[in-house]
Amino acid sequence: MGILSDRSKYAVNPIREEDVLAAQLAEQGKNVIKLNTGDPAKYFKTPKYIIDAYVRALREGKTSYGSISGLKELREAVVERYKRMYGLNADAGDVIVTQGLSEAIAFIDGALINPGDSAILFRPFYPIYMPQLFFYGGKPLFGDYIEEKGWDIDTDSLGKAVKGAKKGRIKYMLVISPNNPTGTMLSRKTLTEIVDFANEHDIFLISDEIYDEITFNNAKFTSITEVAKGVPYMVMNGASKDYDATGFRLGFMLVPGTDKISQKVKSKMVEFAAMRLSANTPAQYAFAEGLRNVREHEKSVKAMVKSISDRINFAAKLINESEYMHVVKPNGAFYLFPKVDFSKLNLRNDKEFTSGLLKEKYVQITRGSGFGKEGYIRIVGLPPKDILEYSINKINEFCREHKKR
Amino acid sequence: MGILSDRSKYAVNPIREEDVLAAQLAEQGKNVIKLNTGDPAKYFKTPKYIIDAYVRALREGKTSYGSISGLKELREAVVERYKRMYGLNADAGDVIVTQGLSEAIAFIDGALINPGDSAILFRPFYPIYMPQLFFYGGKPLFGDYIEEKGWDIDTDSLGKAVKGAKKGRIKYMLVISPNNPTGTMLSRKTLTEIVDFANEHDIFLISDEIYDEITFNNAKFTSITEVAKGVPYMVMNGASKDYDATGFRLGFMLVPGTDKISQKVKSKMVEFAAMRLSANTPAQYAFAEGLRNVREHEKSVKAMVKSISDRINFAAKLINESEYMHVVKPNGAFYLFPKVDFSKLNLRNDKEFTSGLLKEKYVQITRGSGFGKEGYIRIVGLPPKDILEYSINKINEFCREHKKR
Repeated sequence: MGILSDRSKYAVNPIREEDVLAAQLAEQGKNVIKLNTGDPAKYFKTPKYIIDAYVRALREGKTSYGSISGLKELREAVVERYKRMYGLNADAGDVIVTQGLSEAIAFIDGALINPGDSAILFRPFYPIYMPQLFFYGGKPLFGDYIEEKGWDIDTDSLGKAVKGAKKGRIKYMLVISPNNPTGTMLSRKTLTEIVDFANEHDIFLISDEIYDEITFNNAKFTSITEVAKGVPYMVMNGASKDYDATGFRLGFMLVPGTDKISQKVKSKMVEFAAMRLSANTPAQYAFAEGLRNVREHEKSVKAMVKSISDRINFAAKLINESEYMHVVKPNGAFYLFPKVDFSKLNLRNDKEFTSGLLKEKYVQITRGSGFGKEGYIRIVGLPPKDILEYSINKINEFCREHKKR
Repeated sequence: MGILSDRSKYAVNPIREEDVLAAQLAEQGKNVIKLNTGDPAKYFKTPKYIIDAYVRALREGKTSYGSISGLKELREAVVERYKRMYGLNADAGDVIVTQGLSEAIAFIDGALINPGDSAILFRPFYPIYMPQLFFYGGKPLFGDYIEEKGWDIDTDSLGKAVKGAKKGRIKYMLVISPNNPTGTMLSRKTLTEIVDFANEHDIFLISDEIYDEITFNNAKFTSITEVAKGVPYMVMNGASKDYDATGFRLGFMLVPGTDKISQKVKSKMVEFAAMRLSANTPAQYAFAEGLRNVREHEKSVKAMVKSISDRINFAAKLINESEYMHVVKPNGAFYLFPKVDFSKLNLRNDKEFTSGLLKEKYVQITRGSGFGKEGYIRIVGLPPKDILEYSINKINEFCREHKKR
């Protein structure tokens, strides 16, 4: 490898892999539609009451380093949120504020994974989880979300996933609900069974719930914090999605357990945080206000979720009218993850599909294989309906032009 | 290690190791003086023109994810700065914006260090460099800044540092100038010799110059960019110190070379950046304005450096009047790094010194061993003179109370 480390080859992000080409096409004057990043702040203004708090912090000179594990009032506001929404009793000391969830993921794998250790991931998953695991010498044990079950998990098959793995070497099991990329969520029953399984096999449980308030179509979301009583676990969330503030780069880990494992994880995470001093200080004041001002928040998130659900339902209908794709109708987050009928196409795989689509139709989406699920594509469903319609038309056009004859 | 990885033991930051105790003492009502973090924004207001630009970005809704390697206009402003200040010809594509320099350090070791590789560090060094190196399985090869030479480097001894090391396994050589913790800088002659040495031994050179505008007492700073023509290297800098904006968490790496090594490092750093999507977006607009508005910047930095030099010179004089300490007078940054005369004290080492000082006198400083230099202490010289005087008096009092009889 010369100058670079062997592990550096794992530093890849499939969601961003076509960004350079997309930028070049845009510079050439092409009308590039970017449906690859899940960025609500691009389509919905970050709520004014949050921006006001951010400005206030700046004007008051709150621009020095923050405390290592995050602003105390922010961590207290996180605890209040979980008390209010899920009845959880936690302490500000259980919260570690991170520079986005991506930093939390890096901390987790750095702190838990020895070379040869493993972690249970369910396919499809948010892409960053796998390269970070590889980066630290870990290997994934795969479970699956089952498309035919509305992307729920078949917990009966969990035993198979861990078969042969050494006890104590499975460092964590990760669930994402509402899920990115499928836009579906785990039932309370499934989540309970997962908790039981983790408990029985002594596996630390990590639940990524960053879309927990972006749910629709009458679906009922269950948080790990409601069902994982007395079991070591971590829930992750942040400012990016529910609070429509991706550019703040603020996430958090909440480890409410008082057991030995939870204590160890928690205090190690603080030491990891100390290595990079703090997260952005004025943004933390803004996020704290975002969490505390429940009335304003509920108004904003309700309006945003209404728009998102309209757009997602609209796009899902269009996709399911296509003869080349089929999608399980989402009820959370803001992605669509259709299966592409490659038997009808002269294209070998989803990578050829997404890169061809960008080059020929200037629509940037993400390949399913980037999420551990070959043969699918992920479409961000956040833009207004006319853009979604235009893009899905372009996808259909692209399919027709690559049809098998 | 149970749940935690072996490498996780390296996640430590000596500068922050007493933060929990200091917070407890403050909560008990003690008047704790914190002289451990180099945080100018705590003592000097972040310039208004920068805050105004930050507010403008927020009000204009610039709150979505930024581009991976950083806002283009910020990267262009960085290039302009280096052209103006050091005559460097570089391109916006040579700049990668990071979440503070600490993130850059993590990226560097993650991207370059295979287990068993090494890197050349000069003692004393900014603490984070060593644990990050260990974290990725690397080992340091030590050179030394020589106190008797005003903390310059004795380049004749460089050969000794690399003796026995396998060629190609020394991944980089790091210099910090103006130095943290000594507050001194490398001469142009030394820096040129270091460049020659790195070139001769095919070692990638990294120069941390985050204090490059905080120089005083008529000292002349030389940047690596002035002397490393045609050699693969990286210079690091950021918003925290010169622009007095620690809480923004913005740093950058600039890799101007067109050689193969530089190209590889540069493009790998972009991939690392892609794993965490982007840095804080509105802060990047603020920093871009900080860099571009040269007139306002020069006014602010001049005023800040004037205050800093007054305080540092005042503190250095007081320290050198003590019978327990001696300090090389700094001419850059804002730290004092006195040698403690332990032969006069009933204290075994600098760790016992700093933790005793906090417990007994409520003054928090950092032990020299945290910087790779046992027997010294680092004092942050940013506070007003009365606080510096109070603190140095407390240190003397502490020494008297622990004097050998």
